[in-house]
Amino acid sequence: MPRPTRPAPSPRTRVRRLPERAHYDADTIAAIVDAAMLCTVAFQLDGAVHAIPTIHWREGGHLYLHGAKASRMLKALTEGEACVTIALADGLVLARSAMHHSMNYRSVVVYGRFEAVTEPAHKLASLRAFIDGLYPGRWDTLRPITEKELNATSVLRIALDEASAKVRDWGVKDDEEDLDWPVWAGVIPLRTLAGEPVTEPDSVARSVPPTRFG
Amino acid sequence: MPRPTRPAPSPRTRVRRLPERAHYDADTIAAIVDAAMLCTVAFQLDGAVHAIPTIHWREGGHLYLHGAKASRMLKALTEGEACVTIALADGLVLARSAMHHSMNYRSVVVYGRFEAVTEPAHKLASLRAFIDGLYPGRWDTLRPITEKELNATSVLRIALDEASAKVRDWGVKDDEEDLDWPVWAGVIPLRTLAGEPVTEPDSVARSVPPTRFG
Repeated sequence: MPRPTRPAPSPRTRVRRLPERAHYDADTIAAIVDAAMLCTVAFQLDGAVHAIPTIHWREGGHLYLHGAKASRMLKALTEGEACVTIALADGLVLARSAMHHSMNYRSVVVYGRFEAVTEPAHKLASLRAFIDGLYPGRWDTLRPITEKELNATSVLRIALDEASAKVRDWGVKDDEEDLDWPVWAGVIPLRTLAGEPVTEPDSVARSVPPTRFG
Repeated sequence: MPRPTRPAPSPRTRVRRLPERAHYDADTIAAIVDAAMLCTVAFQLDGAVHAIPTIHWREGGHLYLHGAKASRMLKALTEGEACVTIALADGLVLARSAMHHSMNYRSVVVYGRFEAVTEPAHKLASLRAFIDGLYPGRWDTLRPITEKELNATSVLRIALDEASAKVRDWGVKDDEEDLDWPVWAGVIPLRTLAGEPVTEPDSVARSVPPTRFG
């Protein structure tokens, strides 16, 4: 990956540990948000720190979440600052010394405050984008969403403005004097794949739809 | 999975949303911690919430982290409460209505305070457990760790006492009246696999070691 094309957008997003892995440009951040399905949302509630993993999607410069309207997490999120993290494990890096073992990964950390998407047309469009992002064209084939379902669902979003990414995507960096040590050094890539679909016994349709996992 | 065999260990660990997915027994929690390589650690620093993804391992009833001694995160972790989350995406659940789309997943949330593992023999044994947990038997084949390297590395651990797990591992739950809707319903499993190893050009050893990814 090229070096950062712009500086950190705020002091708290500046990467301190291993800054050579930092990226602050919107394209790199968006690509990592898109590649991950799950994020973790950390927030404060009654003075304590909480964090919850949840599914997310992206539209333009925002990361979106959804959940039950009654969720105490979603309520807390619009009332204070949050920190959203995403991490993808891309590879195991095996060095000649324990110290230089590492991982290849892509991660994003976002700071900010969530806002509720309350306007019905916007909320509907966002839920459609969420489903169609996972399963292209699926929304129009589903039993149409009801007003009751739409009302029971909260959609929140946070701007990707105050965000940083970290990427390690290279080989082994051993100490010069260890290069002859007779142990295997290299990278073992990791990837997430879709397995064999399991059709519900009572599914009328038998043909599996496309997903973004291929 | 069977229903919870014990109640939540504390009010803040009790799962409120979808409690039918909750588990509080140590074996379920340990299995999820072991199956994941990455966790997210949320903590407060100067009144703000922060969260950082990091690699972890487990020994007995504790989750372990390591990092550079100079890391401000590791320092903050022993000074206040933390919340550690783990999430594994196991499958995409496609229903006949948008509302009943879901994911199969395993997640863990741990509350508590980290303690530093400072006793040198304990720290050494933990780092060995970390490496050998990923790559069975590898520690003894590596260029031995130096005292300087050991001193530059911090190891922290948090008890898995105040922890909860959530698991969804079943099929589609559509509304009864939607079962005839002519769209595919089913589960698409997801799994993380190791790809083709990339040996470093200057690696003396050419034979790839076993990893826990097979």
